[in-house]
Amino acid sequence: MAAPAEFALIARHFLPLAGPEALGLADDAALLDPPPGRQLVLAADAMVAGVHFLPDDPPETIGRKLLRVNLSDLAAMGAAPLGYLMTTAFPRDLPEAWIAGFVAGLAADQREYGLAVLGGDTVAIPGPISLSLTILGTVAPGAALRRQGARAGDDIWVSGTIGDGALGLRVLQGRLPGDAAGHLADRYRLPRPRLALGAALAGVALAAMDVSDGLVQDLGHLCRAGGVGARLEATAVPLSPAARALVMADPALLALVLTGGDDYELLFVAPPGAAAMVEARAAAAGTPVTRIGEFVEGPEEVLVQGPDGAPLALPAGGWSHF
Amino acid sequence: MAAPAEFALIARHFLPLAGPEALGLADDAALLDPPPGRQLVLAADAMVAGVHFLPDDPPETIGRKLLRVNLSDLAAMGAAPLGYLMTTAFPRDLPEAWIAGFVAGLAADQREYGLAVLGGDTVAIPGPISLSLTILGTVAPGAALRRQGARAGDDIWVSGTIGDGALGLRVLQGRLPGDAAGHLADRYRLPRPRLALGAALAGVALAAMDVSDGLVQDLGHLCRAGGVGARLEATAVPLSPAARALVMADPALLALVLTGGDDYELLFVAPPGAAAMVEARAAAAGTPVTRIGEFVEGPEEVLVQGPDGAPLALPAGGWSHF
Repeated sequence: MAAPAEFALIARHFLPLAGPEALGLADDAALLDPPPGRQLVLAADAMVAGVHFLPDDPPETIGRKLLRVNLSDLAAMGAAPLGYLMTTAFPRDLPEAWIAGFVAGLAADQREYGLAVLGGDTVAIPGPISLSLTILGTVAPGAALRRQGARAGDDIWVSGTIGDGALGLRVLQGRLPGDAAGHLADRYRLPRPRLALGAALAGVALAAMDVSDGLVQDLGHLCRAGGVGARLEATAVPLSPAARALVMADPALLALVLTGGDDYELLFVAPPGAAAMVEARAAAAGTPVTRIGEFVEGPEEVLVQGPDGAPLALPAGGWSHF
Repeated sequence: MAAPAEFALIARHFLPLAGPEALGLADDAALLDPPPGRQLVLAADAMVAGVHFLPDDPPETIGRKLLRVNLSDLAAMGAAPLGYLMTTAFPRDLPEAWIAGFVAGLAADQREYGLAVLGGDTVAIPGPISLSLTILGTVAPGAALRRQGARAGDDIWVSGTIGDGALGLRVLQGRLPGDAAGHLADRYRLPRPRLALGAALAGVALAAMDVSDGLVQDLGHLCRAGGVGARLEATAVPLSPAARALVMADPALLALVLTGGDDYELLFVAPPGAAAMVEARAAAAGTPVTRIGEFVEGPEEVLVQGPDGAPLALPAGGWSHF
């Protein structure tokens, strides 16, 4: 459904991203032999300029963020990447250099994560850049990590550090000190999908998800899926040195860290006796993990225990569009 | 990556569309056991308000058109539908009744074509409605119809009637006589993916594609894929009574019929001796087919033979955005 100019665009920029199953992007569809003895894992995410990324973010990181947000969904299921389809809606006056940068970022990530384009579509939009990506992965039958499975007494774990993405967005918006070359801005623009950790947690984690909408809100999803409450220890939540410095200067930023979203870390559940095994698996995957609380009997909600031991009041809701 | 209001929207409207593999749209991804002994067929198409549909088209038909455009890609490969993922970017002021209508159309087509939602994403956009759909289908190994395969001397076939969609768009725009309840407008808004025909052509068609960008332009794709030229007999191209009436009143409209796009019919190639078998297979599939020319030695281009036998001059290019 592409106009002639779009065929040229596809041949010049997107064809080099295509894997053999894409049939040269010259057929009506891709043809793929599903890997034998594996289940398919499928997710799709959309991103819109001015909503999910800043219009002046480098195009190289926008393509990579789109792909990595989807890879993070695979990581949360313990799945391995197989390929992706992407549709792009670009304004007619978008410079071709922007598209070249966008594609260069994707090409770098295809090498890094070992997958390729299976198909897609490129259209025009009289509005902001609008992107959609569908990812395919595979997992051993029955091994997928689900959101349901938490029980009272189980430990709450999280990978990496929390809050960097939300703080990084404010840095890029000029609302917090810092610069576009720093750690926080980088974490906003380039999520690190925890694929190795997700795969390593099979058989030890009871449930998992990725943190995209804010730690507290996403922990609430695990509570509702498991029919349990959660007690989150705010002081246990792992912060990067850059995030810690900002929160120490303005303790009110702790709420943003806990609810801000754009983390793309794994939030997962393990039995209380499994801490050593969790730590060993995470170390083997090269990913730091931290125990940040426990699931409890009671209403399906998250109690955040503040630095003074008292419940911490947080703004309602989780991630919100900026 | 959805805001709280979007979770409610998903639960209210999109959850009823979800198949069991979607895990209640409450996990990070869908889990699917690929049908054993089949190849996967994958395609994605995007549609933007004001580009691929009219902003005042009924929401019921917009959802169905999005799905059917993708089903038409499966039909062109001879594949059977398996499921789909969809992302929607809606303006914040879009009435919820619009979304309800959009979903009702999809629900009707899910029943008609026997597939369900596997996953997706709903986001906000400060601009026009922007939609993306990724479809999954399956085909017997090696049985997929490809675009390559035409040889000099082979017949060119097309299903149904050509030009209705392009004429229907002009009717809806008030540029041609007719009304929104008529055949042509209906054909613009609701493509008829030729799934039964595509499946029936396995083993007899040498190549196939669906006509989305205009008959002449798409026939050019078959020429380039096969390394042959094509001679298209304009008078043989099947027209509906409504299209025939408009072309008789204004013969200049023949060019629009041949290049206008939005047909979603199957264009396919068969050996010259296979006409009886093609017609029998098409009859069994309940789909009319017409032989409209032949492939020839020579440059990879389409010669359109006009009503007087002389080459017909057509405007350059194929389908273009309105």
